[in-house]
Amino acid sequence: MKQNELQLRVNFGDTDAAGIVYYPNYFKWFDIAGHQFFRSIGLSPAKLMKEQNIILPLLDVGCTFERPLYYDDIITIKTTAEEVNRKTIKLRHEVFRQDVRTGHGFELRGWVKEENGRMFAVPIPDDVRQLLEEDGVGACVHMNPLLNA
Amino acid sequence: MKQNELQLRVNFGDTDAAGIVYYPNYFKWFDIAGHQFFRSIGLSPAKLMKEQNIILPLLDVGCTFERPLYYDDIITIKTTAEEVNRKTIKLRHEVFRQDVRTGHGFELRGWVKEENGRMFAVPIPDDVRQLLEEDGVGACVHMNPLLNA
Amino acid sequence: MKQNELQLRVNFGDTDAAGIVYYPNYFKWFDIAGHQFFRSIGLSPAKLMKEQNIILPLLDVGCTFERPLYYDDIITIKTTAEEVNRKTIKLRHEVFRQDVRTGHGFELRGWVKEENGRMFAVPIPDDVRQLLEEDGVGACVHMNPLLNA
Amino acid sequence: MKQNELQLRVNFGDTDAAGIVYYPNYFKWFDIAGHQFFRSIGLSPAKLMKEQNIILPLLDVGCTFERPLYYDDIITIKTTAEEVNRKTIKLRHEVFRQDVRTGHGFELRGWVKEENGRMFAVPIPDDVRQLLEEDGVGACVHMNPLLNA
Repeated sequence: MKQNELQLRVNFGDTDAAGIVYYPNYFKWFDIAGHQFFRSIGLSPAKLMKEQNIILPLLDVGCTFERPLYYDDIITIKTTAEEVNRKTIKLRHEVFRQDVRTGHGFELRGWVKEENGRMFAVPIPDDVRQLLEEDGVGACVHMNPLLNA
Repeated sequence: MKQNELQLRVNFGDTDAAGIVYYPNYFKWFDIAGHQFFRSIGLSPAKLMKEQNIILPLLDVGCTFERPLYYDDIITIKTTAEEVNRKTIKLRHEVFRQDVRTGHGFELRGWVKEENGRMFAVPIPDDVRQLLEEDGVGACVHMNPLLNA
Repeated sequence: MKQNELQLRVNFGDTDAAGIVYYPNYFKWFDIAGHQFFRSIGLSPAKLMKEQNIILPLLDVGCTFERPLYYDDIITIKTTAEEVNRKTIKLRHEVFRQDVRTGHGFELRGWVKEENGRMFAVPIPDDVRQLLEEDGVGACVHMNPLLNA
Repeated sequence: MKQNELQLRVNFGDTDAAGIVYYPNYFKWFDIAGHQFFRSIGLSPAKLMKEQNIILPLLDVGCTFERPLYYDDIITIKTTAEEVNRKTIKLRHEVFRQDVRTGHGFELRGWVKEENGRMFAVPIPDDVRQLLEEDGVGACVHMNPLLNA
């Protein structure tokens, strides 16, 4: 299955009153890493929306927290296409500080077409399925999410 | 089991590039509603931290999204103590716009003592367990999270 | 000039790695208080956008920080229409914890019409100007932003 | 005066209900760029805090918005030490999408020592002043904020 990696720094405002990362930030990272995963295999969500009226709404999401993260930590988010179903895609995200995993979770996203203001799930095209199911990393893998324009 | 409700408005910045609520905000609401739940039964997390060195870190969390939410929507978050285990508490959160549920999920939180910079899970005291397991709503229930200082 | 007040609680995730409120949150509060100010005098930004294609984009903003704020603090944001110019409105916001002001600032917003995907500033209608310049508080003043639907 | 640059992508959740960047995000970027500026000249805020009990609290901040930014835009934040006063530092931030400036502003930060839980502004040491006032970019300049650990 296709994979991608992304590095981020924990920013000054990402922590909570206990001094550790405020947990909803894990989901911001999942969202950023998920978008970057699609971008890395040529399926930019911005282009999908503009050119095909396809959006990838969240249906279900979860996260298990294993270790605290702190300001200035540099983290790697490893994203894998875990399941490609008929109309949904399940991404698995794992967050690491160096070799230690600090949390892991998933995003289940629909493959949804918007037409005349209505939205309905449609089957994932075969070429997209193939792209997601192939082993390997995205065609243009960068640690920096900025460079995959 | 103990319950509480909280009303919030979807703010202008809570939406994403698709015009619907950006999903990590559900977890901000869960966090706010969870803190308010504890506050409403006299277990203010700020006081627990200050007076007993007890914190309630997230161990596991999940959410299922059923309907989109938009700017200016007024939502009700219903929070219930779903499970009180030996050293963990599971809260269930449901988000409604009027009568329609738009999403639901859970937070599994530990009952953790901080001592000399180290943290370890400790058994939930009996009086706390009783408070959580009793049916009814918090002793001071307000729709407005502001008023339960 | 018209005024409004809003109460909010500092949430668990609103602080930074130094344990005090992360300063961009002041601007979230300004934005929320500004929207609520317009809502309180019958100029709901959501309705303006939907019914008249009028939006109120930020042109200029500033804030001076006087005291730190902490988790669980309850704050009052006092908003006043400070200037009503031909095509812009300047709101003044002051943030208080009880009687102590912790910060103050302003938002300069344009009165902008969207037409065929283009946006241009238009003169503020006389009835709006009058509403903003009249002394007093909004017709429906609530401490709770939730109740001014 | 010392300068630094930082590139970021506008994320899916950074926009508001009008489809453009929610303005408080400019201040998140200013904060990130400011921290990265200090990091790039060997004055990591995390180290300053840990090794010298020095923090750099915000005293005053402002921003002028010139153009809207959208999801997926890649922006460059140019940060310059504009003024080095006795106990304060003024950073100037400019945000560009390619060659077009979309907004600019400043952060005025104090040089503050924490001792026994009390905080007071102290004079900026001469070597720090010199570092800030020298022309040039940070000793280790990367477009990617992640790599300046």
